[in-house]
Order: sequence, then C-alpha cells, then structure tokens
Amino acid sequence: MTPPATAEQPPAVAALREHLARTADLQHAAMLLHWDHQTQMPPSGATARGAALGTLEELAHERTADPALGVLLDAAQAAGEDPGLLRAVREDHERAARVPSALVGEIAALAAVAHPAWAAARQADDFTAFAPHLRRHVELARRYAACFPEVDHPYDALLQRFEPGATTADLRAAFAALRSGLVPLIERLAARPDPGDLLGPFPVAEQRALALEIARSMGFDDAAWRIDEAVHPFMASMGREDVRITTKEDEATLAIGLFGVLHETGHGLYEAGVDPAWDRTTVGTGTSLGVHESQSRLWENMVGRSRALWSHWLPRARELFPGPLAGVDLDDFLRRINVVRPSLIRVDADEATYCLHVLLRFELEVALVEGSLDVDDLPRAWNDGMRDLLGVTVPSDADGVLQDVHWSEGAIGYFPTYAVGTIVAAQLWAAAHEQLPGLDDAIAGGDLAPLREWLREHVHRHGRTRTGGEILAATTGGGLDPQPLLDYLTAKYEALHG
Amino acid sequence: MTPPATAEQPPAVAALREHLARTADLQHAAMLLHWDHQTQMPPSGATARGAALGTLEELAHERTADPALGVLLDAAQAAGEDPGLLRAVREDHERAARVPSALVGEIAALAAVAHPAWAAARQADDFTAFAPHLRRHVELARRYAACFPEVDHPYDALLQRFEPGATTADLRAAFAALRSGLVPLIERLAARPDPGDLLGPFPVAEQRALALEIARSMGFDDAAWRIDEAVHPFMASMGREDVRITTKEDEATLAIGLFGVLHETGHGLYEAGVDPAWDRTTVGTGTSLGVHESQSRLWENMVGRSRALWSHWLPRARELFPGPLAGVDLDDFLRRINVVRPSLIRVDADEATYCLHVLLRFELEVALVEGSLDVDDLPRAWNDGMRDLLGVTVPSDADGVLQDVHWSEGAIGYFPTYAVGTIVAAQLWAAAHEQLPGLDDAIAGGDLAPLREWLREHVHRHGRTRTGGEILAATTGGGLDPQPLLDYLTAKYEALHG
Repeated sequence: MTPPATAEQPPAVAALREHLARTADLQHAAMLLHWDHQTQMPPSGATARGAALGTLEELAHERTADPALGVLLDAAQAAGEDPGLLRAVREDHERAARVPSALVGEIAALAAVAHPAWAAARQADDFTAFAPHLRRHVELARRYAACFPEVDHPYDALLQRFEPGATTADLRAAFAALRSGLVPLIERLAARPDPGDLLGPFPVAEQRALALEIARSMGFDDAAWRIDEAVHPFMASMGREDVRITTKEDEATLAIGLFGVLHETGHGLYEAGVDPAWDRTTVGTGTSLGVHESQSRLWENMVGRSRALWSHWLPRARELFPGPLAGVDLDDFLRRINVVRPSLIRVDADEATYCLHVLLRFELEVALVEGSLDVDDLPRAWNDGMRDLLGVTVPSDADGVLQDVHWSEGAIGYFPTYAVGTIVAAQLWAAAHEQLPGLDDAIAGGDLAPLREWLREHVHRHGRTRTGGEILAATTGGGLDPQPLLDYLTAKYEALHG
Repeated sequence: MTPPATAEQPPAVAALREHLARTADLQHAAMLLHWDHQTQMPPSGATARGAALGTLEELAHERTADPALGVLLDAAQAAGEDPGLLRAVREDHERAARVPSALVGEIAALAAVAHPAWAAARQADDFTAFAPHLRRHVELARRYAACFPEVDHPYDALLQRFEPGATTADLRAAFAALRSGLVPLIERLAARPDPGDLLGPFPVAEQRALALEIARSMGFDDAAWRIDEAVHPFMASMGREDVRITTKEDEATLAIGLFGVLHETGHGLYEAGVDPAWDRTTVGTGTSLGVHESQSRLWENMVGRSRALWSHWLPRARELFPGPLAGVDLDDFLRRINVVRPSLIRVDADEATYCLHVLLRFELEVALVEGSLDVDDLPRAWNDGMRDLLGVTVPSDADGVLQDVHWSEGAIGYFPTYAVGTIVAAQLWAAAHEQLPGLDDAIAGGDLAPLREWLREHVHRHGRTRTGGEILAATTGGGLDPQPLLDYLTAKYEALHG
C-alpha cells in the first residue's frame, strides 16, 4: 500500500517513505503475530506461528539491509527529509548491512535451542546444563560486536542494539554513582521495621476494574486500546491507534495486576502519543528500550505509588476492597505499597532495590564479553554480587543466575536498559515538576492529563526521531544522571517513614 | 525461516519449497490480520490494519509473479516434485504474472470506493448511486479476462480465480439441469402447509454450548481451534493446527448460531485435514471456493439438518431448551428446521431454494461480462429473475439487486461457487453413503468420525494438489452433476412430509 501522497512531499522523500511503509507494515504484522501468540492462539498453532514470525522478521531485515535503502536515504537527505528520521533509519540500515545474515541466523538458531535448555536447566537447578549454550551466545555476541570495530568497547555494539547512543563507559559511570547512593540508602531503609504487605484477598475482577479506571484517567482509550491476559504481561502496539496491554492477576496482591496495568499503560501511552506524521514509518515507535521503560516505571512507581495518586484513588479502592483496606489509612497504604526489602528475584523487586539487580547483570555481561569472567565462574560471581549489592544469600542457581530468560535468547546488552529507564524516569519526573508547578495537585485531583501531555510533548511525539540523549538534553539540559533518582527515593522514603 | 531439510528432498525441490514457505508465511500473517480485524481489533486500528494487510497481499503477489518462481518450478519438476503441487503453483504464478499490477491496483482502488458506495446505496435503496461503480467493475473485469485470451468465454477467466478448472459452459449445463429439477420441486414443496419455524427463545449461552458439543464430535479440537464472535461469521485458518471459526447468535432462532457453527466447522475440518506434507506450502489449503463450500454445506445441511443427527442430539437439545422444544417431537423438529419458503434474501434462504438465488446471480454476471445486459437494466433483470425462479416479487432494490456485498468488491465469478459447493456436497454425500454402508447409523449413534475420515481421505488431505474436478472424478467417477442434489432434496422432503 502506497502512503497517500502529500502535495508538499518531494519525490525522493516520498520514495523513502514508501520503502519504510512496507517495512513498518511487516513490523505491524510481526507484532500482531506475537501478541496473538501470547494471548489468543490455540496451543497447537505454535510451530506454524514460529515459522511465520521468523519469515516476517527476515523480510523486514532484508528490506532494512537492502543497498537500495541507502540510495533512498541519500536522495531523501538531499531533498530535505527530517534529520531525526534519517539518523534513525540510517542506523538501522548500517547495522543490518554490517551484520552478516549468517550470523543473525546463527544467533536465532542458537536461541531456539538455548531457550528450552535454559527452561529445563532452571527447572532442574542445573547451571552446567545451560552453560554451553551461554558460552556459545557469548562467542556469537563477540562476533557481533566485531562487526563494529569503531566502538570503544565491544559491549557498546551489543548495548546499542537496544539503547542507541549509549556507551559502556557512560553506563559504568552512571551506575557507579547510582550504586554508591543506593547501597547505603537501602541498608538504612531495610534496617527499619517492615510495615508488611497489604493483605488480600483482592478479587481479580475488582482489581481489573480499578486498574482500568486509573488507566482510563491516564489515557487508555476504549476505541483504540484493549487489555488481555498473558502469562508474562507486555504491551504490543500495531500503530498509535491500536495499543494492547496485557495483565495477569493474583488476588493475594495488587502488585501484579493493578501496578502491572499502570506499568503497561505507561508503555502504551508512549506508542499512542507518537506524532501521526510518523505513521507507517519505522520511526513511529519508542526511541529505545530505556526510554520506553522510563515511561512504564514513571507511571507505575513515581505516579502509581505516590501520595498524590492515592489521595484521590484510595476512597475508590476502599469501595472495591472494603475488607482488606479496612483500617488502612493513606499513610499505612503508602508504606505497604512501598515496602523496601532486598530479595532474590529481579522481577519481584521493589522500586528501591530493583536497579541493583540490574547493575549486577550489567557488570557480569561486560565481564563475559571482555573475557575477564568465564561462564563457568558466573554462578559464583552472581552469588558474590548479590551478597555485596543487596546483602542476600542466593540459595540456588534457579533463584540466582538462571532466573531470567534474556541470556537464553542471546539478548546481551538488554538488561542495563531497565536501569537506564529507571534513571530517566526520575530525571523526567523531576523536570516535569519543575515545568508544571501544580503537578502533584493535579494528580491528587484525579487529573493525569497535564503529566501525560507533558510527556507527549517532550518524549512521545518524537518517536525515534530523537535519541534518548537528545530527549534528556532538551528536558533536563544534561545527560544520564542518577542523582534525581537518588534524590527522589531519599525524599520519598523519608516522607513515608518520617 | 527455512523449512527443515529432509534427507530425501532433491535440492531443486527444496529450493521451490523454501520459496513457497515464505509466501505461505505471508498468507498466514494476512489471514491473522484479517481474523483479528473482524474479531479483536480496537475500532481505531482500521486504517493501519488496512495498510498492513494491503502490503502483505502485495508482497505475496510479487513473490508469486516473480519470474524466479517460474525457474524454480521448472527445476523442481525435473527433480520429481509432486505434479499436483506443480500444477497449482504454476497456475498461481501464471495468473499473477499475466495480470498487470496496475490492473490489480485499479480493481483494489475501485473496491475501496465502491464498497462504501454500495453500503450507502443499499441503505438509501438507490441503485443509481451504485451503478457507476458496478459499471466500472464490469469494465475492469473485462480487462482482467482479456489477460487470458485462450479461454472459451471471458467469464471463465473470472470464475477460475475462485474455481480453478471450471468453465462457463460446464456451469451453464449443470445449472440448467439443476434449475429444471429445482423449480418444480420447490413449487410442490411451497404449496404444502408451512410447518412454521421453531419458536424460541433459545438462549445464546445454551446455543453455543450445544453447537460446541456437536462441533467437538465433528472434530473441533480445543488444542487447535477457537471460536469467537463476528458480525459476518467466517472461518480463518493459520495452518491445520490453528483453525478459528466465528459465530453470531440470535436467541430467536437456531439457524444463525447453531447451524452457523456447523457450517464454519465444516470449513475448518477441511483446513485441519490437509496432509502435513503440505505445511508451509501455498497448496496446504482448500482447493477451491466451491469444494470448500461443499464441506460447510455438507456438515450444515446434509448432516446438520438430518434425521440421523437429531435422533442422537435432540434429547440433549431438549435438556438445554426445555421450553421451546416441549411437545416438539423428532418429526416436527425436522420439519421446522427444514422449512422450504421462497424468499428474497440469499443468505437467509433454505436448503432447497438457496441455489436458485445463486443461479440468478450467475446468469446476470455472465450477461454483464458478455455485454448482453447493461448495468442500468440490472434491477429489472433481477426482479424478473426472482419472479421466474422463485415466484417472489422484489419490493425494493435494497432487498433485491443491492443485497450482496460481492459486486462492490469486484468479485465477479464468485457467486457460482456457492451452487457448485452445494452440488458437490450432495455428490460427496451420495458417494460417502455408497462407500460407508453404516454411515447413517454411525451418525445416529453420535459417531461423526467415519464421515470426517472419509472426507479427509478423499478431499481434505489433498489440499490444492487435486482440483475439484479430480476429487469428483476420484470419488464419483464423473464430473459436476446436479442429479444427486435433486435426488437428495426430493427424497429428504418426501420423507419429511410423507
């Protein structure tokens, strides 16, 4: 399908846009196949689905690597195409062109074997059964990195697949500062009496109802969004007018269902807020995993676990959960949804300890890629790191080094984006407060539109035409900086615990 | 994704299969996008979805028209590829290569405008508002037919898009014989006292439950199938292990929900029954629209409205619908689900009168393509035909010539496949009875497996590697023959009404 020609578009720009439109359409299809796989597909359909999804990804990759795209980019640049679009698409093109298809195929083939091997190894608590696959993934990752000899550190090439423009050196500096601040803060917080969790049951229908009421006030639009159940919740968007979040619910806690919906709605608002000018281009989506995660974490934690939000919504929650919330006042509620408790599992970690889980993975990945750590020594390094960072003793590899799926898929360089997202969320949260003086009052009044519109203006609408670094520079005047996160956490927990 | 290489496959066969696998994967994706559009998609997603679907269809078309496919076909033929696969793929390739992309685009662009124009014209009961679009569709259909100068009749080229191997001459002969038998039969049946419909309400949850119980006994497999609601029910399959039927229910009648599910399950069994050898080829699906419709109509009507089926299932229906079925014995039930009543609307027509609606459309389409009928004269010809064939007076174009969507989409040549399907269903039903002496007893015992397995063996497993004509020749020793349908209807209604 050719995009509608606009009178103003020079022919070279139109030609580039037509090429991108088809690639974007393949990405639309791949995203839908993935969403359907996780939410709707009959189980027997998995084999055919895997093949179809592989073909869509290959076709999109071939189009992106196609030398003809390079020619179109040059012509469109001369004709005045948007510089941000050109930068993002040129990066995609050069990355796709420089990595041999055979290597891409080797990594995918290994992932297909390594993923079930990881699941079985985790089940059996047997790291040695997974180690050969991980060793091979590290080798392939090094070969991947070698396709980019100009980078300062081979890990940069892996990282930049997920976080364009980020460098190992920058992350090391930011993460070191974060660690220096977080470790003593968490030690102080963990030494306090534990307020305990909220005690359910929180019936799942009422959790869904409350989550959707809050999500609608965030911007969940019933004409353009939907919500389904999934074992591992995620957000999938087939363009800004077809945004799908997923959830799972556990009546024992609000953390999975309710706060999960706020998290995924944060991701969805990013996709929904991209400027329609980028429809059917490959830049009409989030600019990086870190900036995407900044949106989900900002809404889940900075808004979702705030005094301002619950001063508005707690009465409604009380109507839906009269038993569990009887005698729980706002202060008590906030303390219980903001418990800080060093623990073993990243995905269950609280807002304060979460980044330390990520920092450990980053350090280990860099060491594996550098060759300063051998795969056989990884469990010991993991356990040592958990003790040093969080003060916890890892009882088994299943609840330690084998807990995450990422390495089985060869996604080395992915983990740090979670910490980048958390840091960026706090930087944006601080900037929004500076520029919107009545922000907390609006939230406490149930009005989330000012924050959403500020994020749309400064983050969402640009899609991939601005990098995470450019967005930070424009909103904060600087780069990645963990200080606002440390300040935010310190102030929050001081206010909570007096 | 490359299909797994099998030791026995010569390289030229493997190369062809790899080309087909990617095209089949694009078709898988397009089918899912369509299914999702009709059943799950938020309404705002329609624009992006239309574009993505268009791209997938274009990419599949380009791959099919690609001269490289012709080379692969020749090499695979020399290497011993299956002749049925070669025939079907060569037909696809030659059709795609011979019709200029510009003409395909013109037809699609016209359909995009003509479809809403048709809907508005039908709403306003104003044929003149649709006539210019239909005239243009007829012109484009003639240009399409002109790409196939070797056919005996230009309509052949249009028809064979949907029913490979069928000819206008063959259909004219079969349809004339069908008409000669049906018109007097229906006159006799319609002159009898009307037994009246079953009187509801039939609550939709119980209809769905009964429909699924019967469908499961047909072969609906919960691990590989699913059912959803759709405004215009259809079946969609993403391969034989991912089959999706849709339904809508009206508590006033069983005809839409219950019998609709049996119809769509019949379509689904065809897709589910294809030999796994044809997975990820473009021949692993139904061989023609007519043969597909033979499966849905056979299960909906010949099985679904039979004494044998209901002698088993009526007691269960009585449990679910105790009120409406109180005092309705098996004979009465069968008469009421088999009412013959000449009427205006094809999609609501009963089993006996249905084909006459189709025959009218066939005659009119042929006349339009030949040029012996002008679009302006179409309403008069329609109304005359309805009077001659069914004895009904058409009160408005909205309930006459404007009732069906097909012409707005340029699908000239599609309608006759409905009658072909009904004729073939009766031929297969007769052949199955000859070859399976205890068939009715098995059905009356609740065992639908013998019929399903007979159909799988003789129809389903071949996919597109046998034409409808080859399937008929192998099962009946002859070609398209309306006599079994006339015999079946005559015997059925004599038995019902004594």
